[in-house]
Amino acid sequence: MSELTTRAGALDAADELAGVRKQFVLDEVVYLDGNSLGALPANVPGRVEDVVLRQWGRMRIRSWDESGWWTAPERIGDKIAPLVGAAPGQIVVGDSTSVNVFKALVAAVRMADADRDEILVDATTFPTDGYIAESAARMTGRTLQPVTPAEVPGALSDRTAAVLLNHVDYRSGRLHDLPSLTAAVHAAGAVAVWDLCHSAGALPVGLDEHGVDLAVGCTYKYLNGGPGSPAYLYVRRELQDRFDSPLPGWNSHAEPFGMRPAFEPASGALRGRVGTPDILSMLALEAALEVWDGVRIEAVRAKSLALTDFFLECVAAYVPEGRVESVTPVAHSERGSQVALRCDDAGDVMKRLIERGVVGDFRHPDVLRFGFTPLYVGFADVERAARVLCEVLR
Amino acid sequence: MSELTTRAGALDAADELAGVRKQFVLDEVVYLDGNSLGALPANVPGRVEDVVLRQWGRMRIRSWDESGWWTAPERIGDKIAPLVGAAPGQIVVGDSTSVNVFKALVAAVRMADADRDEILVDATTFPTDGYIAESAARMTGRTLQPVTPAEVPGALSDRTAAVLLNHVDYRSGRLHDLPSLTAAVHAAGAVAVWDLCHSAGALPVGLDEHGVDLAVGCTYKYLNGGPGSPAYLYVRRELQDRFDSPLPGWNSHAEPFGMRPAFEPASGALRGRVGTPDILSMLALEAALEVWDGVRIEAVRAKSLALTDFFLECVAAYVPEGRVESVTPVAHSERGSQVALRCDDAGDVMKRLIERGVVGDFRHPDVLRFGFTPLYVGFADVERAARVLCEVLR
Repeated sequence: MSELTTRAGALDAADELAGVRKQFVLDEVVYLDGNSLGALPANVPGRVEDVVLRQWGRMRIRSWDESGWWTAPERIGDKIAPLVGAAPGQIVVGDSTSVNVFKALVAAVRMADADRDEILVDATTFPTDGYIAESAARMTGRTLQPVTPAEVPGALSDRTAAVLLNHVDYRSGRLHDLPSLTAAVHAAGAVAVWDLCHSAGALPVGLDEHGVDLAVGCTYKYLNGGPGSPAYLYVRRELQDRFDSPLPGWNSHAEPFGMRPAFEPASGALRGRVGTPDILSMLALEAALEVWDGVRIEAVRAKSLALTDFFLECVAAYVPEGRVESVTPVAHSERGSQVALRCDDAGDVMKRLIERGVVGDFRHPDVLRFGFTPLYVGFADVERAARVLCEVLR
Repeated sequence: MSELTTRAGALDAADELAGVRKQFVLDEVVYLDGNSLGALPANVPGRVEDVVLRQWGRMRIRSWDESGWWTAPERIGDKIAPLVGAAPGQIVVGDSTSVNVFKALVAAVRMADADRDEILVDATTFPTDGYIAESAARMTGRTLQPVTPAEVPGALSDRTAAVLLNHVDYRSGRLHDLPSLTAAVHAAGAVAVWDLCHSAGALPVGLDEHGVDLAVGCTYKYLNGGPGSPAYLYVRRELQDRFDSPLPGWNSHAEPFGMRPAFEPASGALRGRVGTPDILSMLALEAALEVWDGVRIEAVRAKSLALTDFFLECVAAYVPEGRVESVTPVAHSERGSQVALRCDDAGDVMKRLIERGVVGDFRHPDVLRFGFTPLYVGFADVERAARVLCEVLR
């Protein structure tokens, strides 16, 4: 038994989150792709069965009231809220991340002074944010300027209406400095919109504390909501009265069942709702979020850093020097919950890793991406992943 | 046994669709609210269990390819296509109806000549279409003009860019003349967008035959997809190259996994996709659509008209004259698959009907709405509903 195997055992034994793993459906695979699709929480299948058979099948239309379907978007938003540092009443769940980016960015431009004619967007973003930002700019008559997060402070001016940034870079795993970037955006008089897809559920976000204006995120990565589960939208309480949605569906009306021809927005975060909520997926997510009961996000962050540190250590020990290169920052303050290794034949290497029971993913053109979900990944998994990687690379 | 009871029995015995009912989970309730939330098809629970436990739980990320998750929006679109008279390759499933109305109407305006500055919208529409149309008009710099469907021909001009109409009025159940209204819109050089929420699955639509340009619809009414199941978008083949979406998410990119910073639209109906598809709800819908195998939509329409005719006849026979007034057209060519009865104390009456096992719904301020789903409602149900209505009104 190598020293690293021994260390892994000791780290697992001391892990305060180790017990959470049994709340997930897992097998012998080392699953390091929870940053793409989180594993299945064990209580989801039973809940979904109840929603389908009893709530839909037997209660049918009555469930909109009696099973709490109608209020699910805001109720589940309030369950996500503590994970991203938000007080209740500021998050609604629904639609995809892309659609929420559109709502948030258009609403942000409308909140800004009318003479501000530029939108800044993270040039390293997951592409959909950039595409949607381009549409938001086109439809609000603004100019879109793609800049790296590091360039944002220098690019801000009194022409900047809004800035759309990612908290963690989907490719490299770099964590951007949300507090200081938000402060810089505010100092320039602009509105800050954050995409939390790769940070929520992996590290503390502190939306309220840092004065973030608007935020969006998906729920199928570290929040384990299931494939394509609905995204969420955060609107800071002080801005809710000024949230002017480009998608004012009947669910965001002050009186949805009044069936009035004129739109009158609801108050609060409800303004972020659009059409009829997708109940099956939404209530599966609600069940999935129960695994967070009693889990401190600070403990998740501490374990996440320990896991990624340990993985980098194991890779350095096992893999021949120069065969892979980490593109994930070394400094904890700049690291999310994934490790990205650059490797010439990354596509082929990932295929062989998966065949051997270590599941990460490949990001075009040359990145092996390993996500570490602290709720169910252990240190022995990490050591094994590095060992199998070494075997595959040999 | 009354003459109407005898007639109901004979009609049920002669019903070619009577056997479809056993493919649904039903009970002793007379469920006349399938135009709001369709009943549960019996094969859905097992399919959902497989999606959750095996596809998500065991196969996890591999299911995006191996379980056909990625291609579900267009595959399921092709299953809806024959029900609305569309050849394959023109429908994608995803997002809510409201979001699809936005995509369709903005894209319609962009297809029209740039100097056309008006959008016509059905003034009697389900409110969300009107709210979204207002946003689409605002964001494309057009003027929105609400008109009744009857007023459309007179309101069309060389200023009209696009027209958004409902095939069936959600309140009265009036069926609008899709072929002639579409022809009138085209004669004026404008783009025709239809909302099929209250017609798809209840009657033949003939999208291709009548040259409809764009259409949207929900799947949780007569298509029985489940609460808030994803909506769909139809883009006529000849217009797909000109479909310029206001929501160009990564799923509508020509090469989604190329992760390219510049947006390049996919070809075909895929352009209507946006973000990551909501798999649980989408695959529940796919299972639900299997009840249509071997069902002719013409048979559905014939039974639908027979059911609503028979209901009106039973109401006339049982209910004291003047106590309720039908606002649903008598002419078959103007009737959808519901009957709306005006009644002073409609809210209270519907409550008491539901208590007695006859489920319809109440539409503010004074309408009792009864939806007749030919796949699972029989003539004995209809007779019983009218009889219980009479008891409640007495």
